[in-house]
Amino acid sequence: MIAGIIGATGYAGAELVRLLSGHPHIEGLALASVSFEGDRIERIYPNFLGTVKAVLVTPEEAIASARVVFAALPNGVGEPFAKTCVEKGVPFIDLSADFRFDDDEATYTAWYGKAYVYPELRKYSVYGLPELNRKQIKELAASKPVIIGNPGCYPTGASLGAYPALAKGIAGTGTIIVDSASGITGGGREPSRAFHYPECADSMTPYKIGGHRHTPEISRNFNVMYNTRAEAEKSDPGIPPMIFTPHLAPMNRGILSTIYIPLADAWRIKPVHSGAPRPPAQEITEKAQEIRDIYAEFYRNEPFVRVLPSDTIAATSRVRQSNFCDISVHLDQTGTTLILAAAIDNMVKGAAGQAVQNMNIIFGFEETAGLTAIPASF
Amino acid sequence: MIAGIIGATGYAGAELVRLLSGHPHIEGLALASVSFEGDRIERIYPNFLGTVKAVLVTPEEAIASARVVFAALPNGVGEPFAKTCVEKGVPFIDLSADFRFDDDEATYTAWYGKAYVYPELRKYSVYGLPELNRKQIKELAASKPVIIGNPGCYPTGASLGAYPALAKGIAGTGTIIVDSASGITGGGREPSRAFHYPECADSMTPYKIGGHRHTPEISRNFNVMYNTRAEAEKSDPGIPPMIFTPHLAPMNRGILSTIYIPLADAWRIKPVHSGAPRPPAQEITEKAQEIRDIYAEFYRNEPFVRVLPSDTIAATSRVRQSNFCDISVHLDQTGTTLILAAAIDNMVKGAAGQAVQNMNIIFGFEETAGLTAIPASF
Amino acid sequence: MIAGIIGATGYAGAELVRLLSGHPHIEGLALASVSFEGDRIERIYPNFLGTVKAVLVTPEEAIASARVVFAALPNGVGEPFAKTCVEKGVPFIDLSADFRFDDDEATYTAWYGKAYVYPELRKYSVYGLPELNRKQIKELAASKPVIIGNPGCYPTGASLGAYPALAKGIAGTGTIIVDSASGITGGGREPSRAFHYPECADSMTPYKIGGHRHTPEISRNFNVMYNTRAEAEKSDPGIPPMIFTPHLAPMNRGILSTIYIPLADAWRIKPVHSGAPRPPAQEITEKAQEIRDIYAEFYRNEPFVRVLPSDTIAATSRVRQSNFCDISVHLDQTGTTLILAAAIDNMVKGAAGQAVQNMNIIFGFEETAGLTAIPASF
Amino acid sequence: MIAGIIGATGYAGAELVRLLSGHPHIEGLALASVSFEGDRIERIYPNFLGTVKAVLVTPEEAIASARVVFAALPNGVGEPFAKTCVEKGVPFIDLSADFRFDDDEATYTAWYGKAYVYPELRKYSVYGLPELNRKQIKELAASKPVIIGNPGCYPTGASLGAYPALAKGIAGTGTIIVDSASGITGGGREPSRAFHYPECADSMTPYKIGGHRHTPEISRNFNVMYNTRAEAEKSDPGIPPMIFTPHLAPMNRGILSTIYIPLADAWRIKPVHSGAPRPPAQEITEKAQEIRDIYAEFYRNEPFVRVLPSDTIAATSRVRQSNFCDISVHLDQTGTTLILAAAIDNMVKGAAGQAVQNMNIIFGFEETAGLTAIPASF
Repeated sequence: MIAGIIGATGYAGAELVRLLSGHPHIEGLALASVSFEGDRIERIYPNFLGTVKAVLVTPEEAIASARVVFAALPNGVGEPFAKTCVEKGVPFIDLSADFRFDDDEATYTAWYGKAYVYPELRKYSVYGLPELNRKQIKELAASKPVIIGNPGCYPTGASLGAYPALAKGIAGTGTIIVDSASGITGGGREPSRAFHYPECADSMTPYKIGGHRHTPEISRNFNVMYNTRAEAEKSDPGIPPMIFTPHLAPMNRGILSTIYIPLADAWRIKPVHSGAPRPPAQEITEKAQEIRDIYAEFYRNEPFVRVLPSDTIAATSRVRQSNFCDISVHLDQTGTTLILAAAIDNMVKGAAGQAVQNMNIIFGFEETAGLTAIPASF
Repeated sequence: MIAGIIGATGYAGAELVRLLSGHPHIEGLALASVSFEGDRIERIYPNFLGTVKAVLVTPEEAIASARVVFAALPNGVGEPFAKTCVEKGVPFIDLSADFRFDDDEATYTAWYGKAYVYPELRKYSVYGLPELNRKQIKELAASKPVIIGNPGCYPTGASLGAYPALAKGIAGTGTIIVDSASGITGGGREPSRAFHYPECADSMTPYKIGGHRHTPEISRNFNVMYNTRAEAEKSDPGIPPMIFTPHLAPMNRGILSTIYIPLADAWRIKPVHSGAPRPPAQEITEKAQEIRDIYAEFYRNEPFVRVLPSDTIAATSRVRQSNFCDISVHLDQTGTTLILAAAIDNMVKGAAGQAVQNMNIIFGFEETAGLTAIPASF
Repeated sequence: MIAGIIGATGYAGAELVRLLSGHPHIEGLALASVSFEGDRIERIYPNFLGTVKAVLVTPEEAIASARVVFAALPNGVGEPFAKTCVEKGVPFIDLSADFRFDDDEATYTAWYGKAYVYPELRKYSVYGLPELNRKQIKELAASKPVIIGNPGCYPTGASLGAYPALAKGIAGTGTIIVDSASGITGGGREPSRAFHYPECADSMTPYKIGGHRHTPEISRNFNVMYNTRAEAEKSDPGIPPMIFTPHLAPMNRGILSTIYIPLADAWRIKPVHSGAPRPPAQEITEKAQEIRDIYAEFYRNEPFVRVLPSDTIAATSRVRQSNFCDISVHLDQTGTTLILAAAIDNMVKGAAGQAVQNMNIIFGFEETAGLTAIPASF
Repeated sequence: MIAGIIGATGYAGAELVRLLSGHPHIEGLALASVSFEGDRIERIYPNFLGTVKAVLVTPEEAIASARVVFAALPNGVGEPFAKTCVEKGVPFIDLSADFRFDDDEATYTAWYGKAYVYPELRKYSVYGLPELNRKQIKELAASKPVIIGNPGCYPTGASLGAYPALAKGIAGTGTIIVDSASGITGGGREPSRAFHYPECADSMTPYKIGGHRHTPEISRNFNVMYNTRAEAEKSDPGIPPMIFTPHLAPMNRGILSTIYIPLADAWRIKPVHSGAPRPPAQEITEKAQEIRDIYAEFYRNEPFVRVLPSDTIAATSRVRQSNFCDISVHLDQTGTTLILAAAIDNMVKGAAGQAVQNMNIIFGFEETAGLTAIPASF
């Protein structure tokens, strides 16, 4: 079948082109770009020379010929295309934030400064984090047209890292901290001072502290995950607050999220050592392994989540160009806080790869179709 | 005067050579190396060609000719040299962990696996974080021989970032999280798989989660700083627990520490917004500025600490090759947690530069002598 | 079928594991390692976790179960395995230099300091640069056991860049200069000072000037290519001398070779401008296009060589993780010298990918089987 | 005295600010910027926070208060300021190309597309490569107002690398090839696609092959240097042609130039080995040392040129942030071609540092004043 990509010349679009070109069920691509209409994608991205020969068309033309449409557009401009797809009965997989907040338009508006264009489209839309919403995605796609709100890059890693702790009663109600570092491709293709090579090479810096737009998405996911706990536990309504700090790291791809989750009382090691800190005791190591086992069991059937063994720590290099999310499970030395390290490729599991995964779910393909590339060793 | 450097061929040693070569009060260097005795430093580090002509001698020879001795040695091997210096009345500035824990040998032993060789030397030693201990350093140096326990790289950035919050009652008693990313020079000069270029290039990864040796040093500093609060406040004996996670970032130099400090009740913004997070309100911005002003005032006379204005965030590139610690002050969007970003050059303020600063204090030189280089823009 | 890899834990070995794991005709891998026998490859390279589950066996075991054997070993140690494979009738694809020099043992010995162990094996061996020797590889594989001397990384890019100029009479007899820059993975997996992150990050440096082991391989290839010219031209026996200079560039993968070939008289633009240089005239641009067209025609049927259009210059990023060799064709401003820029991924077309390509040729598979991944845009 | 910098907010300007702030004879800076007039330099470059407090003024104001003026402006816009300075008798050190070509306006126009605005200013101007023109600079500055045409970054490294070979009859008349790789700061501060982090990270690529604007400057320098040979040799009017190819390397600072100079007949090793190449013979090693000795002698009194010993190869990391030009001297394995590797920091010796060096010469300061910083080891 033909896949359409609107916004094919941005970074997420280019990554969709790459992944879909190797997808066993995609026979052709209809690539759309407002800026470069009439040009050829291989001229704009010479890495595609000789392999992807499509001429860029208008979004309307792409939608007309496609049986699935991906939109990799700025926030706030894709809804008309979503509407057309819904009317045509073509699945619309949206990589912007427009469909990530379901009915909570107020939150979307507060953070993105825009109103929904067609609010009624949300009855067709579902948040596309497969590990959380696979069932809903399938059901929606089976019964009516479907719009996928493909998750943000930071929320993907953070949410997968925290999910078992939240859902299995390991997390207490203390503030969760998500401290993430992203490669520069996260800033997109448009040149700017912040992403000018000499400005970000060889440097680490946080940005948008306390105010990054992915904050409400992560927070909402945490709440949903926390509320999937067994009824008995739900008597406690306390949803843990969340603080998120993104950083720019001097690399092209990858997000490493280090997540600090205060343990539920039942999981805390007592008595906590008083006085100067000591290296982790045997008890800490064992408790960490216990939680690691829960994580491994939780994600046992997930094709793209790897819970790492005790001697391996998540690193972005090991998931580069793959759809994997690697999670390593740790405890702090006092036994009060669970620490997760979650690594994804921001452009694959954090964007284009997850979008392809969603397409696979919608169409009943093998979920890993087109996403089987093994990450390279270096 | 002549400065001696024992362990001159390691990375911290080489940085001492660079800084001391340009120091206005140092007329010559006596460089010692067990591994390379008889060789010339400019052969081992060709960047020094034509500028530093010293032949490497034995530690004993270096001590014999020097009026101040720096030791950049592995942990646990420098005490005999410290003893000699004390006996000779020559200040000994130690860049290892051996003199960072004062009388608390138990903590040193627990984390470093060694006992003190000459425990009695601790009556001459002081922890060399000038912003915390300048007075003690001066007093000790005035009255008897002095040994400086030069701080670790991570503890330097973390401690300077947290100090005003701890000392001024801004910090509550909740767990403080220090999340740091270091350049690869922090791993030293010895080749290993972990620091092999293809293994760490283009990747982010945490390491030694819950168990890094700098944990007790940071924790001890936080306690000391917390206890400098006014008497009235000291009725609350609760010392905030601390969690520290180091990361490797794909760059040569620099440490960026992002520090999360739960606010004291008096500083928390109430009522905390319930429901989905919202972008930081005006109230948050104002409160952050209030704390920023306290920070600026606190460090007003410190020559090497720069509290950044509200529109600037700490970045390691801006302190590269300098002795500055840049601190930017932020609040999370819910107004419960102070977030500091502290950037240092791990090899300068985090090692050799701070050692030179300590020497300047001991000898009554201008504290910035030899450390006036302005960081480059790129 | 089962593919065996001897030396699976080195960088070239790991890249073979990655590529062969996705090969449509390879059903399993028999991985051998002397250093890590009994261990699992996914423990040594955690990027393989969950995807490559093989336990490392002895070389003998790997050969016993395999229908094709790849050897990614140091120079001088693989011949016994080659012999066994020949005796068993199993193709042996050798990534070392041992089989790159055919009967010219003297050159091999002069540069590698070793003698052939089983000189008679050379009657089964062929130099595996498919674009040059595809026919010979096929013929040899059809008639008897075959050993492939898989080309060196630098010789691959240099030879493909120069081939059309040499074979089509564009090159004169002046000295050819090959100036190449390689990513650090070219130095292999073993840690050393030269490849320690802080030593090579953020720096450019040449190495082994005038004496790199790939010199005779490049030179031999140039001679062979030059001698494929039409008979009439062969009256001139002058084979152009060649100078090769490798550089280390601060990146993980890729080789960029800039090749300077003095033009044959027939191609030189006359009269060469005297006096101060002027920007390239129209005549230069046209002549460059003429040669570019010859290059494009020459490589028209080659699946892995891309001759770039006039407005695109070869860059290593655009072939990363692919088996492509990108070549851009240029003239200097005086019209005397052809300048080629040739980019490959040193670990793919420069090592493991080319080895897989050779396997495909030997077995009559589609030559691109297992090598269809499109390079990413960043 | 006060130094004025026009164009202080570009990269070369910022580097001038850094160097002049530490200059022992500069008491203050008058910084001018058309784009940022009225703003403070420390707001634009936060690395300067607390150390450089100047408010940006107009060029006219800067000139009015300064005793020396540096211009770090785009090509073609600085002549009016030069004129004013000449009229005021204030030395004008110009970092653009406007004053690099002396009377040869035709060449300037051919490459830069502009005419001289005030051609008569060239009677005050001199090309400011001190190692070549120190005497002329001094003489001109002594007798009348002086304008310095500060050399381009590539021409500086290339010219210093080739100078002794050209001047001492080592170079023959064959084509010289200059193959250079530059850090990304060479592209300036303005964001663009080419210098967007994800586009140039982890990649090597040449650019402007056969047509870079520094070509005529390098070529002219080579001619001048060649013509400084002794009279006897000058009977041969043949000036070697030159080809220059710049590359972008994934690093911030530094230019590494690898220069290939065919030897004069008297220096060629005969008979050149025929047949397959062999590793460099003893004879080659000795001849290389002979030339290295000539180089060392040639530059014996130059404070910023380091001719490296035989076991050390030039690397950009070793001159980072310094005004050094490191040169290593090599021969190819056939003994026909001299190969130089020359490393500079493109922003220091290649721009701002050399400008300061020129100021020192003009004013009779120690030539190394303000430029004594020793390059760091990493």
